[in-house]
Order: sequence, then C-alpha cells, then structure tokens
Amino acid sequence: MTTEREKRASSWFAALRDDICAALEGLESELAPDCPHHFHRDDWVREGGGGGTMALMRGGVFEKVGVNVSEVHGVFAPEFRRAIPGAVEAEGRFWAAGLSLVAHPRSPLVPAAHLNTRMIVTTKTWFGGGADLTPTFPVEEETRAFHGAMEAACAAHPVADYPRFKQWCDEYFYLPHRNEARGVGGIFFDDLSSADWEGDFAFVREVGLAFRQVYTDLVRHNMRRSWTPEQRRALLIKRGRYVEFNLLYDRGTTFGLKTGGNPEAILMSLPPEVVWP
Amino acid sequence: MTTEREKRASSWFAALRDDICAALEGLESELAPDCPHHFHRDDWVREGGGGGTMALMRGGVFEKVGVNVSEVHGVFAPEFRRAIPGAVEAEGRFWAAGLSLVAHPRSPLVPAAHLNTRMIVTTKTWFGGGADLTPTFPVEEETRAFHGAMEAACAAHPVADYPRFKQWCDEYFYLPHRNEARGVGGIFFDDLSSADWEGDFAFVREVGLAFRQVYTDLVRHNMRRSWTPEQRRALLIKRGRYVEFNLLYDRGTTFGLKTGGNPEAILMSLPPEVVWP
Repeated sequence: MTTEREKRASSWFAALRDDICAALEGLESELAPDCPHHFHRDDWVREGGGGGTMALMRGGVFEKVGVNVSEVHGVFAPEFRRAIPGAVEAEGRFWAAGLSLVAHPRSPLVPAAHLNTRMIVTTKTWFGGGADLTPTFPVEEETRAFHGAMEAACAAHPVADYPRFKQWCDEYFYLPHRNEARGVGGIFFDDLSSADWEGDFAFVREVGLAFRQVYTDLVRHNMRRSWTPEQRRALLIKRGRYVEFNLLYDRGTTFGLKTGGNPEAILMSLPPEVVWP
Repeated sequence: MTTEREKRASSWFAALRDDICAALEGLESELAPDCPHHFHRDDWVREGGGGGTMALMRGGVFEKVGVNVSEVHGVFAPEFRRAIPGAVEAEGRFWAAGLSLVAHPRSPLVPAAHLNTRMIVTTKTWFGGGADLTPTFPVEEETRAFHGAMEAACAAHPVADYPRFKQWCDEYFYLPHRNEARGVGGIFFDDLSSADWEGDFAFVREVGLAFRQVYTDLVRHNMRRSWTPEQRRALLIKRGRYVEFNLLYDRGTTFGLKTGGNPEAILMSLPPEVVWP
C-alpha cells in the first residue's frame, strides 16, 4: 500500500517533470523558433511492479533531452539486498520513485547536464540524487554559476551538507581509466535520511527547482554563440567519455540494466551522436 | 624469464598482426585507391610489466580498424586471482600475450568483425580467443561463409570442439538488457589447454589465418555495393549495441580498464561514429 509520503514524493517528481519539460520546450520556442519541438512521452511498465514515463525531445537547442519519471516496487534479488540499506530486513521488498534528466545540447558551447532525485523505501526511507554539469569547453563563470546555485539550494536546508555533496559528486563522476572527471561537478548525495523527513523532501525539491533555473539560464546565455566544426567534433568526443562513464561505472545504469529495468528508459541518457577518434 | 613457448606465441601474434595489417591495407589500395591508407603503429608500455603495439587505420574501406598486440606480465591483484586458473597457486604472477582486432567498415553492407587470440600463463598455460561477425544487415550466405570458415578451422584440429565453441560465442556476445545478440556469432573459446600444447597452438594460429581469409573475402565481396543514408544510419545505431556490449559486458574490456590497462588500446574497439536514436 502506498503511503502518504510515497504519494507526495511521486507526485512531486511528476510535477517537476512537467515543469522542467515546459521550461525546456520554452527554450526551444525562444531559441530555435523555426521548428517548435516538444517532448514525446512514452509510458512503460516494469515487469516486477510499477513503471514510468519517459519524456524525450529532439529539438534544435537540445539534440536529445530525456526526462524519465518512475515509480516502481517489488522485491530485490537476494544478491543485491546486502548493498541496500534495510533491504535484508524488508526481505527484499522496496518502493522507489524518482526523476532523472539528461540533456545533450546540439551546440558544443552549451553544457550537457544531468539531474536525478529519488526516494527509496525498504524498512528505511531515504532520498538520493544530485545535479551536475558537463561542458565540452568549461567556462569558469558558468561553472561558478552552477556550483553557486547548488550551494544556495543546500544552504537553504539544514539537512544538506554542501561541501560533502560537492566532493561526493567529484568522486562519483570520475573516469579512473582516463584519469579524468566526467564534467565540472555539482552535487551528489545518497542515503539522505535525517530525523526530519519533511526537511529532506524540501531539500530534494529545491535541488530540482535550482537546477531548472540555473540550467535554463546557462542554455539561454550560450545558445546564440556560434561554433565551429572543430568545436562540434570536440563535443562528440567528449560525449564518448559520457558513454564510457555511464556504461562502465554509473550504478543506476548498470544496476537498472542488470535487474531487468527498461533499457530504453535507462539508456535514454546516452548521447545522440558520439565519436571515438 | 620468458619460455620458449611464450616466445613462439608472442612472435606468432606479431607475425599475424603484420599479415592481417598488410591484407587490410591491400583492401584499401584495391577498393579505395584514390587515397591509400596505412596502419599507424603506437607502442605502449604497461606499468606493471610488458606492453604492446596498437596499430590503427582510418581508411576508405575501414572507417576504423585496430589491431592490438600485447605481451604483458606481472602480478594479479588478490581480488582477481580466484577467477583465474592457477593464479592463486602462482601467487598472482602471470604472463599473457595476444592479438585483438576490431574492424568497423564504413559501408553498412560490410560486416564489422572481431578477432582475438591469446595465451595466458600462471601455473597453468592456456589459450583463448575467437572470431565473430557483426553485420548490420545479415546476409545468410555471408553468415554461412563465416561460420563455415570457423568450422573448417576447428575441423582441422582435434583439440577444437566447433559446436561448443560456436554456442559459447552465441552465449558470450549477447546483450541481455536488449534481449539480442551482438552479431551473428562465430566461435569463442577459453581455457584451451589440452595435453597437446603444439596442437592447441596450431589451432589458435589457424583461427587467425581463417579469419583473415574469410573476412577479406567478405569485405571484397560487399564493398562495391552502394548503400543509402538510411542504411548508414542503421549501421550507426547497430554500433551503439556494440558499445553497450563492450562497456557493459565484455570481460576483456572491463577487466583491462579496471586493472590499469592502456585505455586507448583497450577502447580501440569502440566504433568511430555512433548514434543512439
């Protein structure tokens, strides 16, 4: 039976999705008005319980942007339980809902971006997520604006620990085989479960809203700058690193694929066009 | 100290590399004569011991083809030893040499192909490898020719078990999250260590030679057929599956990257241009 908290979290993720999709469609109308693009939504059902909706747009500004919301439940296979708080005690039963977004802009001067927020319930209840930026050509001012927005979101909520979440992001989005970071970072958090669920949830909502604001600003700011074929090629190569990270290391991706998740929804994060030189 | 067998295996892999590179360069001259392309070789050194040479060609026929030979030695980290025959007994010490080739043709009507042969020594000595074909548009006659060549290579050597090696290939090159095969198969074998090392080695050599012959025939046969942009797009999408397999499942790739292998040599297998639609 879905609890009140589960309902509220799930509704929030759907509302945030609507809000962000509208904002990104707004950017398309504003910045690429010749051909107005919209998100196309596809519902999917998870075999073990629950499902989700994948919203995908291929536009003029965003070569590919996907926003997936899901609400799933079921029983974790025994081999996964030990790694998940409270899963052994719950005999594997879990509930999870979340939103994940990956934006791959067409212009090499507009950073790619990623947002994820989720709530998970076993015998414990916690939030996880984060937001991070992957420019091909990092611009200090822009990196500062993104980090500043995440810092402000954390500062407004006593449950959040910005320095820790920032460092966690740097450590997580790292390609050891290349000895390089995936992007310029942001925040990453997991197991967020203070004594104050309302406070945790309020922070998670703020991360989503802060991301929407700062990222749409960055896109608007950079989209009209012209770029060269060499810059575009650098973007396609940078995207290869994104693929390497997601398929080799990203726990959400590998876990989802290995536990029978919807491959289209999970791999929605992969860039539309990639080059390995 | 390198043994006689190690020296012979290592020399063979280098000789096969020379032979295959010459054959593929020959196809370039023959089929795309306007702009003759050649392999470019780069030596690399492995931090823990040994090294290799990566030969790479970007041509008119082959959009990207890499042939890597390596001869490495050192000590496996304790966490890997249990999975490797004789490694615990050898206190982790190993020697390994091999050749691996991945060819990504430009034409969607010419199949991509993969060849790998290797010898590994701990307290045990064994061979592994295989060859398989990945067409975007499988043609039955062509698939039959490839399988026929592998079957003939096996038939000539009592140490080889074609039905088993063929099935092993089908099982190995499979994407469970897509519920689809990477390609049309071929052969795959590992732990090949009969009482007759000479026989094992002769079979491994034959696999390399059989591959060279059948694959150059297939390329020559298909290269002049004209193709459409839709077919090219299908190739780029098919290549995405190749990337997914190699980064998510391929043991050589993930093992190599996680044990400090040369990322450029390991990821040489990734296609030059890829699309996730």
